[in-house]
Amino acid sequence: METLVLALDLIGTFVFALSGAMAAVRHRLDIFGVLVLAFTAGNAGGITRDLLIGAVPPAAIGDWRYVVASVVAGLVTFWGYRTIHRIRDALLIFDALGLAVFAVSGTLKALAFGAQPIAAVLLGMVTGIGGGMLRDVLVGQIPTVLRAELYAVAALAGASVVVIGQVLEIRVVPVAVIGAALCFGLRLMALRRGWELPVARPIEPDATDDHLT
Amino acid sequence: METLVLALDLIGTFVFALSGAMAAVRHRLDIFGVLVLAFTAGNAGGITRDLLIGAVPPAAIGDWRYVVASVVAGLVTFWGYRTIHRIRDALLIFDALGLAVFAVSGTLKALAFGAQPIAAVLLGMVTGIGGGMLRDVLVGQIPTVLRAELYAVAALAGASVVVIGQVLEIRVVPVAVIGAALCFGLRLMALRRGWELPVARPIEPDATDDHLT
Amino acid sequence: METLVLALDLIGTFVFALSGAMAAVRHRLDIFGVLVLAFTAGNAGGITRDLLIGAVPPAAIGDWRYVVASVVAGLVTFWGYRTIHRIRDALLIFDALGLAVFAVSGTLKALAFGAQPIAAVLLGMVTGIGGGMLRDVLVGQIPTVLRAELYAVAALAGASVVVIGQVLEIRVVPVAVIGAALCFGLRLMALRRGWELPVARPIEPDATDDHLT
Repeated sequence: METLVLALDLIGTFVFALSGAMAAVRHRLDIFGVLVLAFTAGNAGGITRDLLIGAVPPAAIGDWRYVVASVVAGLVTFWGYRTIHRIRDALLIFDALGLAVFAVSGTLKALAFGAQPIAAVLLGMVTGIGGGMLRDVLVGQIPTVLRAELYAVAALAGASVVVIGQVLEIRVVPVAVIGAALCFGLRLMALRRGWELPVARPIEPDATDDHLT
Repeated sequence: METLVLALDLIGTFVFALSGAMAAVRHRLDIFGVLVLAFTAGNAGGITRDLLIGAVPPAAIGDWRYVVASVVAGLVTFWGYRTIHRIRDALLIFDALGLAVFAVSGTLKALAFGAQPIAAVLLGMVTGIGGGMLRDVLVGQIPTVLRAELYAVAALAGASVVVIGQVLEIRVVPVAVIGAALCFGLRLMALRRGWELPVARPIEPDATDDHLT
Repeated sequence: METLVLALDLIGTFVFALSGAMAAVRHRLDIFGVLVLAFTAGNAGGITRDLLIGAVPPAAIGDWRYVVASVVAGLVTFWGYRTIHRIRDALLIFDALGLAVFAVSGTLKALAFGAQPIAAVLLGMVTGIGGGMLRDVLVGQIPTVLRAELYAVAALAGASVVVIGQVLEIRVVPVAVIGAALCFGLRLMALRRGWELPVARPIEPDATDDHLT
């Protein structure tokens, strides 16, 4: 069981790291930048969660396997960009799997550190989306999770299932599986059907002053 | 007293969250992005302070009322953008109130956790301006507090009053009220008179290489 | 010895703060923005390291000398931009010195807080490059360390020497000196010879969707 969770976690880190490395290559970063974005996309969500619950040093920097998974993903992308680019649709399925695993394991870790229910849901979601958000900020873009597609909501749903199960004192394994399956299924459906969240219409779309008004 | 501080703190969170949600709508984020920016603008300052003083988990994610205040502000803005836009001048007054409350309460919390005087002033200021800074970074803009208007200086003044009062061992309530009033007053004057801080003139205004030179 | 390390650390903070202040002036930030970017560039690396190892409050905000070094660098730049601009080549040598000192002292501090070898190397590197990265993000640019020049690799090399020395149980002073010298030398050579890291060629260089594909 323990081994299964670790294996899924490392797969999630690896696939997320691929997304970071792809973004880095596309923005013409050098090989160091590719490795940094790979590590960031793969681990920043978990690191943020660990900082917020006081679990220092964060697992992602204390455990060499996460570093290795990120570095390998970065090197694979740097030398095999065309191949990774070609299989990107298949990778989106692994990305959905990574999101599901991160959302559920992040929520469980937050609960284990005594987080309240709402906090645990938020921390599970942050574990899933934090890496991609920092990846986008580092290449100077508005995080894609904030403006397109149904992505974070899938993580939110998975995390909520875990917390509700905990409150109702249901055994953790089936709850974790259901939470991950819900997140994974929602994300796949969103990909297949192009589900998006609603957008509000601003009055002045290109205003540049961001100070409240 | 306790209740008054909490009420002011929640009002500050709510108004700051409105500013985040407005920025999100203006940049055409989806409803999830609106909620994230609302939460960020309302709470990132306090979360940063809590991380820096070791108060984990941060109050903003441990206490559901801050989450609710942020989500409500996000939804109100998403569905009532035009109304919020119309009353934006009035909201700037509440924003100044939020700044004053955050600067003072942030400084007091830092002192309560044993921060040195200079650190407490900086942490009070960060509590007031951190949320707006991260809001701007997430929508790809240089933080407005760094380039326009007298805003952070008001927070700095309020925080300094609180620390000076602590060093002189004056009772905390009157000191907090004076600090908040100074911050609020400075910010209102800056708004009314268009006070700005000086800007230096670079030699090559559109240089793009940022590496020391 | 203690005094020497502190002096080098403050020199590093001061020179890094100059780079932040220069970037702020170039992006036309006001004087408050100049001071914030000076502080950020000089201290964000060490603060990040301290957060990740649980050393709160971080030294940079708990010790007034780091604040003073940053503020002085900011004011000097604000009023003497032209002078700083003229001596920028000489400053790059001090910047390399700051990088060397930060990489080594950051690694040693991480080891002192019980970080594992790989984590200590990463934390030493973060201490050296974190300030510059956040400086660039705050002015809306992709961090220069990710896309140009051999900079982080020098920090990585210096940090690795320190960790290897620790693993082999060699006395700390000579190891620290060798690590710093290696980092400093590599960086100087990179500056003189224009060494750069390789860049991969993306298929579609101006794609804007960052979601894995």
